[in-house]
Amino acid sequence: MWKPDRLSDQTLFQQIADDLERRISYGEFPAGSLLPSERKLAEQLGVNRSTVIQAYAELRAHGIIESRSGSGTRVSKYKWGATPKHTPNWHRYAEGGNFLPNLPFLRRIREALGHNQTLIDFASGELAGDLSPVEEINLLMSEHEYTSYLGYDNPQGYIPLRQALVAYLKQYRGIQTTEESILITSGSQQSLYLITQCLLSPGDAVAIEDPSYCYSLPMFQSAGLRLFRLPVDDKGVRPDDIRSLYKKHRIKMVFINPNFQNPTGAVLDAERRKELLDVASELGLPIVEDDPFSLTAYDGVPPKPLKSIDPIGSVLYIGSFSKIAASGLRIGWMVAPHSVVERLADARQQMDFGLSVIPQRVAAQFLKSAYFVPHLERLRMHLLYKRDLLIEALHKELHELVSFTVPQGGLHLWCKIIPEVNDNKLLEEAIRRGVIFVPGSVYGSESGYVRFTYARARADEIGPGISKFSAALQEARVNKY
Amino acid sequence: MWKPDRLSDQTLFQQIADDLERRISYGEFPAGSLLPSERKLAEQLGVNRSTVIQAYAELRAHGIIESRSGSGTRVSKYKWGATPKHTPNWHRYAEGGNFLPNLPFLRRIREALGHNQTLIDFASGELAGDLSPVEEINLLMSEHEYTSYLGYDNPQGYIPLRQALVAYLKQYRGIQTTEESILITSGSQQSLYLITQCLLSPGDAVAIEDPSYCYSLPMFQSAGLRLFRLPVDDKGVRPDDIRSLYKKHRIKMVFINPNFQNPTGAVLDAERRKELLDVASELGLPIVEDDPFSLTAYDGVPPKPLKSIDPIGSVLYIGSFSKIAASGLRIGWMVAPHSVVERLADARQQMDFGLSVIPQRVAAQFLKSAYFVPHLERLRMHLLYKRDLLIEALHKELHELVSFTVPQGGLHLWCKIIPEVNDNKLLEEAIRRGVIFVPGSVYGSESGYVRFTYARARADEIGPGISKFSAALQEARVNKY
Ligand SMILES: Cc1ncc(COP(=O)(O)O)c(C=O)c1O
Ligand SMILES: Cc1ncc(COP(=O)(O)O)c(C=O)c1O
Repeated sequence: MWKPDRLSDQTLFQQIADDLERRISYGEFPAGSLLPSERKLAEQLGVNRSTVIQAYAELRAHGIIESRSGSGTRVSKYKWGATPKHTPNWHRYAEGGNFLPNLPFLRRIREALGHNQTLIDFASGELAGDLSPVEEINLLMSEHEYTSYLGYDNPQGYIPLRQALVAYLKQYRGIQTTEESILITSGSQQSLYLITQCLLSPGDAVAIEDPSYCYSLPMFQSAGLRLFRLPVDDKGVRPDDIRSLYKKHRIKMVFINPNFQNPTGAVLDAERRKELLDVASELGLPIVEDDPFSLTAYDGVPPKPLKSIDPIGSVLYIGSFSKIAASGLRIGWMVAPHSVVERLADARQQMDFGLSVIPQRVAAQFLKSAYFVPHLERLRMHLLYKRDLLIEALHKELHELVSFTVPQGGLHLWCKIIPEVNDNKLLEEAIRRGVIFVPGSVYGSESGYVRFTYARARADEIGPGISKFSAALQEARVNKY
Repeated sequence: MWKPDRLSDQTLFQQIADDLERRISYGEFPAGSLLPSERKLAEQLGVNRSTVIQAYAELRAHGIIESRSGSGTRVSKYKWGATPKHTPNWHRYAEGGNFLPNLPFLRRIREALGHNQTLIDFASGELAGDLSPVEEINLLMSEHEYTSYLGYDNPQGYIPLRQALVAYLKQYRGIQTTEESILITSGSQQSLYLITQCLLSPGDAVAIEDPSYCYSLPMFQSAGLRLFRLPVDDKGVRPDDIRSLYKKHRIKMVFINPNFQNPTGAVLDAERRKELLDVASELGLPIVEDDPFSLTAYDGVPPKPLKSIDPIGSVLYIGSFSKIAASGLRIGWMVAPHSVVERLADARQQMDFGLSVIPQRVAAQFLKSAYFVPHLERLRMHLLYKRDLLIEALHKELHELVSFTVPQGGLHLWCKIIPEVNDNKLLEEAIRRGVIFVPGSVYGSESGYVRFTYARARADEIGPGISKFSAALQEARVNKY
């Protein structure tokens, strides 16, 4: 008898549902006939009863079977009877729309992490639980009353949080702004989404760094944008490249992540910053400055944002709590001219009607609290420690097989593999051995790289993780294809 | 000297910024010249200093002026000097993108409510603060620890909340489902957004109720959908209309709000529910059932959802906490086949990376708590009380000038005005008198109606609000144009 495959990528319940659908359509169970009870089928297949319950629920949702309490589960007469009824063709619907699916590598990584909680995680671009201010947030939530209002919030964001950010931006980022010029978003992600959806039109050309986080986002293609690349070296992007892209393709906007760039860790050189702003003002070209990492600067001196030296307002500035506090808060912000903020706030009302007030209040309190500065200090110290553990392990396990620039802030190390191996093979071998990372090709045109995030794994996992990676790399090099 | 107009729709700071820009471009202040200090200008114009700070910040964001600490605020040399530099043309960018702006009436209402906190609010479709379980949520937040994890959450939603919803849907809505088939969203709004963006393609035809909440959402047009209308009578939509729309326009999906419909309050008749599901299965047509109001049923017996009697899985079911607990939580859900849920979860990762875990935890705790049932009972009682106050006031103040069906649940009363008056005139007269409502034309093709939300205003405001409305109506009838 058929049994589900526990090593398959497909979930058990989905395999069981697929198998039952096949058997029903082959006539093994005719319309109206009784299916085995959940308990019985679970026994036969050697799975938990809850797995069969899920499989039956999935078939029920597709109208393939029906359950009536007391009389068991039967093959649907509607669907399989003499006058067939039609369930919507959900697969066709799911293929519709403008949204491209996430990249296969990223889906594979999400799935692998979902199925195996013990994987050593060099892939998720976020902080480990113990680097987030969880204690502090618990305290703030129990200390403060959430009093009167839990209604629809201002679509531009909770005013006290915008006020707290005005002070934060001035103090920590040298940016002068007002609460009218701030939009609160669900992380930098939503800022990027709003910009691509609402300020650009299909067919528009934009420039993004190569490699960059943006390449991992089908969002840009979903919006119908034409992407042009700005190569990133140790000093970031070259302003001249922007000028020539503008001449050739009339680019409408430039997206950069100048401080401890994801994935390279590069910091845009001070000289180039000025030139870049000159090019922008010469061409009337907007620059989107995505700046989630700068407060992690290990030496305690974050690079100054472009926005702080932007004389004529060419820069849309994006920030987030994700990489300096907690990604699960889902709090980010954008600084932009009031007319732009108003436009985006109006559009976002149609998407989600604004953010929940609760995490916005928590974020505002945290920013204003005495916890904020000590948290940042602790965070920097721990990240530096983990970075050094990673570098030590790479030197020990892989020496001449890898090459990298040591990042001075951020969460990631961008590592060249010498000689290059097949990304897919390397990832699968690594997963089989209990470690996971992001193949460099996810971030653009460069192949032969790996992005290791050292912020997410526990300190004691970093050495063993690299040992496993090393074994996977050996296997992938031998077994080329 | 020019002074800002306090009665204008434009904010003071925007008026001041516009005036300064005009004066700079006319040469009154040449490039590089010093502008008045914030304090001085505030005195001259008779406004708060903070208003001038905002105006200067807006001009700075547009690159029109620059401030250096210590040396005051000057007209930008970059922009107005000999070799002009160009700020991006933000207005042109703000007009780009696929997103249509919200309807003018709705923007006007938001703006009026923003500027005048004392307006009696029959417009906002939400609960008054004291009908939300604010106390209960404060208690739950201080009782529970938010322990370990504040990382990126599962894009499908926080698992314990999905589990709590499985139990909730079974107990309160007669819907059998599993956590794999539930997607947590930022309210029903985001469910609708995801469906229109990800399951439909530009050019697709869909059917929506007329009048309906959906007409108030440019979202449908932004997605490039062609809209066809299903007239709503006292028993809801007529299933035959769906069949004929399908024949004529190959509609791809049907959106309905069958229980205490917004705005009419109509409940879809039991007989028609069955027919509608028959039509759906005959045509293989998906039905989106938007069901935010049913637990407000004043008799305590909520109408059964279509989804609970959907034999073959034609229905995508949408729920929300907004109308039964608090709209500021921003928690909604969708029940759909697993393949659809997966698709939408993947797409939403690109939009906002999922919801904050905090309100999801609060919602899960609230659902499972002993507070939930008493809250619902109290809510129903208060809504009924407010409905009756509204009806009493309408009878008293307007008797034969209005006609309506008494709603048996929900937050709204749909009121015909006899004879019809100009919507715009009526709204402006009402705002001038301190009361606000939504003109019926926002919801579709029917004119001569008003939607009164009785849930949002305080009980003691309802009578006075209708008196003011009555005066506005008199004025609008006399002064036709
Ligand atoms: C450069 C960059 N921008 C934006 C984001 C999105 O983060 P969030 O939406 O959590 O702020 C990330 C996350 O990895 C990132 O690395
Ligand atoms: C019928 C209907 N659906 C959806 C919504 C959106 O509500 P939310 O996103 O707050 O759940 C509303 C709000 O007014 C509504 O009336």
